[in-house]
Amino acid sequence: MPSEFDIIRRYFTRPVKRALLGVGDDCALIAPELGAALAVSTDMLIEGRHFFAGADAAHLGHKALAVNLSDLAAMGAAPRYASLALALPEADERWLAQFAQGFFALAEAFGVELIGGDTTRGPRSLCITVIGSVPSQLALRRDGARAGDEVWLSGCTGDAALALAHLNARARLPDAALAHCLARLHTPAPRVALGLALRGLATSAIDVSDGLVADLGHIGERSGVAIELRHADVPRSRALADCSDVRLAQECLLAGGDDYELAFTARPDARARVEAIFAEPGLTLTRIGTIVAGKPGMVSVYDAGGNIMPIASEGFDHFGG
Amino acid sequence: MPSEFDIIRRYFTRPVKRALLGVGDDCALIAPELGAALAVSTDMLIEGRHFFAGADAAHLGHKALAVNLSDLAAMGAAPRYASLALALPEADERWLAQFAQGFFALAEAFGVELIGGDTTRGPRSLCITVIGSVPSQLALRRDGARAGDEVWLSGCTGDAALALAHLNARARLPDAALAHCLARLHTPAPRVALGLALRGLATSAIDVSDGLVADLGHIGERSGVAIELRHADVPRSRALADCSDVRLAQECLLAGGDDYELAFTARPDARARVEAIFAEPGLTLTRIGTIVAGKPGMVSVYDAGGNIMPIASEGFDHFGG
Repeated sequence: MPSEFDIIRRYFTRPVKRALLGVGDDCALIAPELGAALAVSTDMLIEGRHFFAGADAAHLGHKALAVNLSDLAAMGAAPRYASLALALPEADERWLAQFAQGFFALAEAFGVELIGGDTTRGPRSLCITVIGSVPSQLALRRDGARAGDEVWLSGCTGDAALALAHLNARARLPDAALAHCLARLHTPAPRVALGLALRGLATSAIDVSDGLVADLGHIGERSGVAIELRHADVPRSRALADCSDVRLAQECLLAGGDDYELAFTARPDARARVEAIFAEPGLTLTRIGTIVAGKPGMVSVYDAGGNIMPIASEGFDHFGG
Repeated sequence: MPSEFDIIRRYFTRPVKRALLGVGDDCALIAPELGAALAVSTDMLIEGRHFFAGADAAHLGHKALAVNLSDLAAMGAAPRYASLALALPEADERWLAQFAQGFFALAEAFGVELIGGDTTRGPRSLCITVIGSVPSQLALRRDGARAGDEVWLSGCTGDAALALAHLNARARLPDAALAHCLARLHTPAPRVALGLALRGLATSAIDVSDGLVADLGHIGERSGVAIELRHADVPRSRALADCSDVRLAQECLLAGGDDYELAFTARPDARARVEAIFAEPGLTLTRIGTIVAGKPGMVSVYDAGGNIMPIASEGFDHFGG
């Protein structure tokens, strides 16, 4: 059985180019970048809570990094470094090789260097801290939305939650829809290029991880504004549009979570510039609502007739469930 | 019951002074410091592995941060920021308040700002990433030891392991010795001031977490040198010296781990400067050996008669046990 040090050497030590010192010392060393601030984010994923026992290791390696890169994207930061702490019930080399493959494939795609971490025995869980670079004046914060701003969403929400509903036998998806939704659940694409394109353009941004309405609520709270969404304008995938359980589809759309799209606000006079963004092939940007003066954090969803729809606005809360 | 967001707000959100943006957005933002590199280190602590179920929450808050600050100390870095990911079986407010008290007392003592993290439900575990500041040319790395350098140790090793032996009923310590050793186990003091004083003076450094011989072995490996220790020169506390189980005492001294002292190397002509360091009251610095040409990472311990002692040189390996 490989030792902790063998595991780190074999699976998690790759040469670094940007970092001054990578894995293998008490700390990693990174050089500051002139004129840029560092954006730092941490996410912990626990077996049985954030992923199923027996989850595909390569998918997990991808997703664990992707959800962190999504936080950098929401800040408009360019990904640079990651540290990875991994607890495993046993040193399963096949699992480790697959996990590392999924992790590094995404890391390399986004120029992320693994600079450190920890490996230990324990209930399967992992914790990633990512570090990105962004000029501090251009960082996309949650507190910059102002009344009159328009609310935008990249891609569409609800597919990951719909996949989960299928896996939990709450829905029964046709094969093509299932494949689409499972990919969204297991291997989300962090909207890094979009985040970079929104620098100096978006007045606020957040990544949708807890559910669209809940995450927009976070922007509202931090910015001291309320938000009005037009239900008909919230885009949905073919898989979601075809879902016969209308109630489930709406729940997935507005409160599903695990989407890793960016929700952001911009002034109306920036509309043409937002529409001109080409961040990645096939990624649409849709205007879904408006920032208004009102109770900070309040999100109201309007139906086609202009009436407020009753919706559960709470997103996912790890201690509420 | 408090929600995840309530927990973060109530227990883990404190105003930041140095950071540009603290807890509450997708990422924290920190400004680079002119001429300094950032040192980054991550440690994960798992219940039942790194701490006992039912461990005192304030001690745990202290220790979790202390072991990370010890890594910064070993790099000669000044502590700046920390992120904290916490998994808990339930949102126990008394536990959280005590944990936060232990964590922030140490954080404030060392000027560390909590800038982010994650809170989730799961088997009790925590993961801390610390960020410090050090001019890259002055960083204390593991790879700078050269034949002829002298090997130094701060304080003494073995007390934490002796406390653990008592708790596991392998030893029976008198009250005063037990109190001393338990404090060393539960609330270690990271040698931050010493790390700063060693900038430009030590040729290599490491913090002793896996056991003295094992950690010196890491310096040897990275520096491509061997190490000779004089057993009689390795300092021991009164508690360890008084231990009647000689074999246990030696095991604790050389391979116990959890010490969080600094082991470092310096050229012989730096001896007077090392001896003149006053890092903290009562902290001794002792010359315990020499760097020699030899098999990289090989550590030999000599007895008073000049004979090599048979010792288990392996430190703690999380997958070996």
